[in-house]
Amino acid sequence: MIGPKIIGKSVRRVDAPLKVTGKAYYVDDLKLPGMLHGKALRSNVPHALIKEIDVSEAYKIPGVKAVVTGSEFPYRHGLLIRDEPFLAQGRVRYIGEAVAAVAATTEEAAQKGIDSIRVAYEPLPSVFDPLQAILPGAPLIHEELSSYPHSEVCQPVPDSNICSHFKLRKGDVEKAFKEADCLFENTYTTSFNQHCALEPHAAIALFDPSGKITVWTGNDGPHRCLREIALSMSIPFSNVRIISAFQGGGFGSKGGLRAEAIAVALASKVKNRPVKVTYTREEVFTSTLLRHPVSIRSKAGVIKDGKIVAKKVELFWNTGAYGEKGPWVCRNASMSSSGPYNIPNVWIDGYCIYTNNPISGPMRGFGVPQVAFAYESQMDEIAHELDIDPLELRLKNALEKNDETAWGEKIVSIGLKECLKKAAEGLNWSEPKKDRNRGKGIACMQKFTTTLQGVTSAIVKYNHDGSLDLLTSSMEIGQGVMTVLSQFASEELNVPIEKIRVSSADTDYTPFDASTTGSRSTYHMGNAVILACRDIKKQAVSMVSEFLNLPRKELKFKEGKVVSTKGHEISVVELINRYYDGARGGGGDLVGRATFYTKSGTGLDSETGRGKRPAAFWMYGAQAVEIEVNPETGKVKILRFCTAHDVGKVINPLCCEQQMEGALAMGIGFALFEKVDVEEGQIFNPSLESYRIPTACDLPQDVKIFFVEEPHPEGPYGAKGLAEPATAPTAAAIANALFDATGIRIREVPLTAEKIQAALEKTGSIH
Amino acid sequence: MIGPKIIGKSVRRVDAPLKVTGKAYYVDDLKLPGMLHGKALRSNVPHALIKEIDVSEAYKIPGVKAVVTGSEFPYRHGLLIRDEPFLAQGRVRYIGEAVAAVAATTEEAAQKGIDSIRVAYEPLPSVFDPLQAILPGAPLIHEELSSYPHSEVCQPVPDSNICSHFKLRKGDVEKAFKEADCLFENTYTTSFNQHCALEPHAAIALFDPSGKITVWTGNDGPHRCLREIALSMSIPFSNVRIISAFQGGGFGSKGGLRAEAIAVALASKVKNRPVKVTYTREEVFTSTLLRHPVSIRSKAGVIKDGKIVAKKVELFWNTGAYGEKGPWVCRNASMSSSGPYNIPNVWIDGYCIYTNNPISGPMRGFGVPQVAFAYESQMDEIAHELDIDPLELRLKNALEKNDETAWGEKIVSIGLKECLKKAAEGLNWSEPKKDRNRGKGIACMQKFTTTLQGVTSAIVKYNHDGSLDLLTSSMEIGQGVMTVLSQFASEELNVPIEKIRVSSADTDYTPFDASTTGSRSTYHMGNAVILACRDIKKQAVSMVSEFLNLPRKELKFKEGKVVSTKGHEISVVELINRYYDGARGGGGDLVGRATFYTKSGTGLDSETGRGKRPAAFWMYGAQAVEIEVNPETGKVKILRFCTAHDVGKVINPLCCEQQMEGALAMGIGFALFEKVDVEEGQIFNPSLESYRIPTACDLPQDVKIFFVEEPHPEGPYGAKGLAEPATAPTAAAIANALFDATGIRIREVPLTAEKIQAALEKTGSIH
Repeated sequence: MIGPKIIGKSVRRVDAPLKVTGKAYYVDDLKLPGMLHGKALRSNVPHALIKEIDVSEAYKIPGVKAVVTGSEFPYRHGLLIRDEPFLAQGRVRYIGEAVAAVAATTEEAAQKGIDSIRVAYEPLPSVFDPLQAILPGAPLIHEELSSYPHSEVCQPVPDSNICSHFKLRKGDVEKAFKEADCLFENTYTTSFNQHCALEPHAAIALFDPSGKITVWTGNDGPHRCLREIALSMSIPFSNVRIISAFQGGGFGSKGGLRAEAIAVALASKVKNRPVKVTYTREEVFTSTLLRHPVSIRSKAGVIKDGKIVAKKVELFWNTGAYGEKGPWVCRNASMSSSGPYNIPNVWIDGYCIYTNNPISGPMRGFGVPQVAFAYESQMDEIAHELDIDPLELRLKNALEKNDETAWGEKIVSIGLKECLKKAAEGLNWSEPKKDRNRGKGIACMQKFTTTLQGVTSAIVKYNHDGSLDLLTSSMEIGQGVMTVLSQFASEELNVPIEKIRVSSADTDYTPFDASTTGSRSTYHMGNAVILACRDIKKQAVSMVSEFLNLPRKELKFKEGKVVSTKGHEISVVELINRYYDGARGGGGDLVGRATFYTKSGTGLDSETGRGKRPAAFWMYGAQAVEIEVNPETGKVKILRFCTAHDVGKVINPLCCEQQMEGALAMGIGFALFEKVDVEEGQIFNPSLESYRIPTACDLPQDVKIFFVEEPHPEGPYGAKGLAEPATAPTAAAIANALFDATGIRIREVPLTAEKIQAALEKTGSIH
Repeated sequence: MIGPKIIGKSVRRVDAPLKVTGKAYYVDDLKLPGMLHGKALRSNVPHALIKEIDVSEAYKIPGVKAVVTGSEFPYRHGLLIRDEPFLAQGRVRYIGEAVAAVAATTEEAAQKGIDSIRVAYEPLPSVFDPLQAILPGAPLIHEELSSYPHSEVCQPVPDSNICSHFKLRKGDVEKAFKEADCLFENTYTTSFNQHCALEPHAAIALFDPSGKITVWTGNDGPHRCLREIALSMSIPFSNVRIISAFQGGGFGSKGGLRAEAIAVALASKVKNRPVKVTYTREEVFTSTLLRHPVSIRSKAGVIKDGKIVAKKVELFWNTGAYGEKGPWVCRNASMSSSGPYNIPNVWIDGYCIYTNNPISGPMRGFGVPQVAFAYESQMDEIAHELDIDPLELRLKNALEKNDETAWGEKIVSIGLKECLKKAAEGLNWSEPKKDRNRGKGIACMQKFTTTLQGVTSAIVKYNHDGSLDLLTSSMEIGQGVMTVLSQFASEELNVPIEKIRVSSADTDYTPFDASTTGSRSTYHMGNAVILACRDIKKQAVSMVSEFLNLPRKELKFKEGKVVSTKGHEISVVELINRYYDGARGGGGDLVGRATFYTKSGTGLDSETGRGKRPAAFWMYGAQAVEIEVNPETGKVKILRFCTAHDVGKVINPLCCEQQMEGALAMGIGFALFEKVDVEEGQIFNPSLESYRIPTACDLPQDVKIFFVEEPHPEGPYGAKGLAEPATAPTAAAIANALFDATGIRIREVPLTAEKIQAALEKTGSIH
């Protein structure tokens, strides 16, 4: 058996030529015949009734073709809870909510139309802090909460601002706390972040006379987007078509209906003309998604030798005015908030709480960066208190294969300890500290892929010239999925990667895929593509058996050919050309199809949060960092960084490393300085000038990347995912290194220079 | 067993809403970003060397972006023989040949660019008559003939103007002629016709930086068009993508590279900008295709009782300057030119002959209307001479099931005699003649579907909302294929037709199909769709077996559901939703795929024209007509018309009737007045004002349509094809009726009033 030829190789990204030549098209690049431009009028108050909307002036502006308000398009959307109007319906709940929209022949005319609309608001009491929002007497943001259709992921508490309450119960925490040697109780908090994808949100919608709605968008989940529009409007799914363009990054912000909602509402009014809506950067901040700030109260009971015996975690997720994927973030991240440790007694309450802030949602890690900051900071607090090396403490408690998790799953593939050891070794963890301003920190994480995984179908078309078309609904969001899928098909069918084309998604053509989220595509779509290739192999063998009249058992598919036990061989191309009349000017193809699905658990028990296999696979990683703190300014400089991840199998080392580097940058931003300033629901830094994201100068020179290959039994060539996890341990690793360097424990990210400086001033000095 | 529910029903055409609301898009409707408009400069001489092309003025015209000539794009195309340059290379061979092309920001600028180009020609001797073109010493039109790559369909004779020579040899005709009681030798001729599709030829081409060529076109064969471009330019097939729009009729004129060739040549020069080329009506006449005029010498040997014992046919097809599909028309129509009769001795020579005329090609019937005019006129001449009723003579000689044809095939499905009887009955054939100016005529025909049938693949996507997507490369060319395929899928899977969407072809997405020609789609694509539906059924049964742990043999698919012998049942939608997580916000689909192919003969023997199964199926039909001749003007009025066709199985009666009515109109035009006036290679009536096609006033009021359902063992529900055959017998039926009415035998179509009047004058009177 020869090993794989192209799996594990750093194949050049197949989308590179289009991207470096500027010819990869994004939604805003598209110009359709008769296309109009749409703009939305945004609420400037956080919570109010709409008494009147006067659009009469808008129609007088040359070029304005349509104005639409919520009363004319009275639908609500929301994948998990249908709470969000396409356009405000009588009430606004955050600053930035769309109140009306205008379509015009130019963007300028649309903006003039927007500027001419007058809205009369009657203010309502607002609430911005989730801990206040759950107090009795707090203003109710959704009085109709109990009437909203919602998925089982979302467990709303009627007549409250609790959009969803997730519970996990394992063992008896109170008893264990009593028996523990030490108790640790801390609160950790995080801030609003914005994804800051290079490409702002954009969508084009067209209603045609047959009643079909076509939407061009770079949405993460073309089929999910279709479903959400259809369910919102109560129309057949088949009346909606999503055509995907490349996505210029999304990181979780492009999975719902954002620009799509405005475009669809406008298109419904103009009919027969496409309407394009491209958000300004300010709208991306105010009116798409932010990363949830969360307040995490974590109580740990520990035996003196370092064994953690109980953990109770309460998480208060500030989800803003509408649910979006907040309930899901709350559930999934809360569920894993006791950390990747074997703890016999766990009690978790995660609250997803409405406030009058902009909407929160997933951002690279689906809440895990926040909870990892908490559980990994607390691990070091425990280590310090018990005087155990932080690495040792983690290794002592870390989950292992066949352990049962807090939610009751038996782990089938885990390389966590190996990751911890690699990360530590890479940083010479045991080397004694040399410089008083320097410190080292370590942290690890666990994250599962998306739980609403649905199924994943793929079609592979083996053309008569030996080229392949892969028809999938996976989205190229910058992560390299086109390349990885090409590698799988190339390996399976022995077709050179240059002869493989990966389609972009078009729901009328490409088969179902749940979404391109949760680091799921290599695993799910990879498996689907491999199975579709095997369907082709099976057919090729059948054809040879039929045409050459050979018993099927004497034939097998090997290296792109059907070979017989007697030594005959024929390639697929020859097969098509010989038996399908190709030589006579015909041609032909072999079409393979497959659906991959994991028979994962049928959900979690709503009272205990327990389930046998809530997700297809789990990802684990660890990071170790050495920093230097400037004692005058409080500024942190990252000297060395070492990241180790269990990816099951590295399919493309270069792509994997690029993912790690990108995640590292986002992790550092989250850890050190990224913060959307929101006060009373108003964002004060909604631009890339005022909201700071990392630049090359913020990144360490000395970065070591390790991959641990603990194969997943069901993964394609053993692969799991890796897009999200590397953002998660960074903040805690840096916070722990800061403590190591300075003795200062900061329990709130970002760990800004100002906070550090203030803390240094308070303690008087360094150490 | 319940009979079919929707097969055989007059379902409304699924493309009707888009078409009646004007929203079905054709190529010329498309406007792409940055699109340029292209025009071609056409040769005004029939045969000449190009001494110089001066394009310098063109570039001075504002808006002109590119000028291209044959030296810059030195490729030749041609499906059967690669003889035709995209743009003339040093030599022109017909009036209307493209010599240079211009792309500009507007059509006007492109035209100005064209008008500014100066070409210096050096005239060469020309030849226009195919019978002269094959004489020794005739000017050679393609000196390089022997060097052109060609398919086995084409048998060129080097150093001659014979582009292809088809031979069929059965028995010993000379011996049989000697033994026959009577010999009949006649020559029949036909004229140039033009298809006059409502939509003129149009194409848009784009070269992108990756080297990919995308062409938007309404071509009959998207995959064939792809292949022809790729082979012409020696680039990988996967570098070409064809995206189909609706086709506004083609009737055989839209199967090669016409506007596509000009658009591709221009796009190669401008790069990164799409170039649209839409032909004027004049260009459609001069520079696409005409129906072949053919001169047919037919000699029949007959026994007194009417039994035809030998037939020798020589056919001289005027194919114009380039081969296009001429060799194929010549082969297929010549092959069937002894008629649908059981004749023991047959000798056929078909010559496809180059001349300096515009290019000839297939037109609804692929040469069969021409040969049927000859063999069915001669049948009546025999009947008259032997004093046998024309119907009786035909019934006596007609092929029957299990007979062997002239080319050696055993017939598996034939309803010819039934058609003859139905047509005759419908016209009260035996009723004696009442009026001296009136006459009745009858004629029948045979035609096979395309012989280069290749294979046909289909993908059916069963979506989680119960809708279906049929992914096929069949073209909706007005014939109703979308409706018929929807009916097949509806019947197989019990899905309402409103929930079925049929894709348009896009070679990057839709699987291989040879072409939408030769009345092949109902049979070939119908079978592929049915098989793909059955692949879904099989998967559904497997899923139920797997999830419910039931033995597969206890399960079957019935009326859209999987049912168990114990009475359980589950629909596909429930199946997807229950087992693919649909209820939890996921979704899913079942993808079926299939390739249909006929193990037809591996071609015809090049010396004898014999083969076991040259095509998948044969079509038969008969028509009877009563006419009245105006003795003063010679004008023919059709009083009653009766057409009967063996379609195997009527899938959609309304669609079938519409096909018959359309064919009738084209048959009448061919019979009575359609003629492109070509003199010395110059067309004198290249417009819809000067070239007359039938209007409603030309069509009879009294039309009876009969379908004979002689099922084909391999056809979908027994269906064969029906788009072409009904055009074929019309001219002979009318010519025979004219003879019956007047005693005048005209052996040249069209049977214009002028010709009839002249003949009446010559004979002095009627009868």
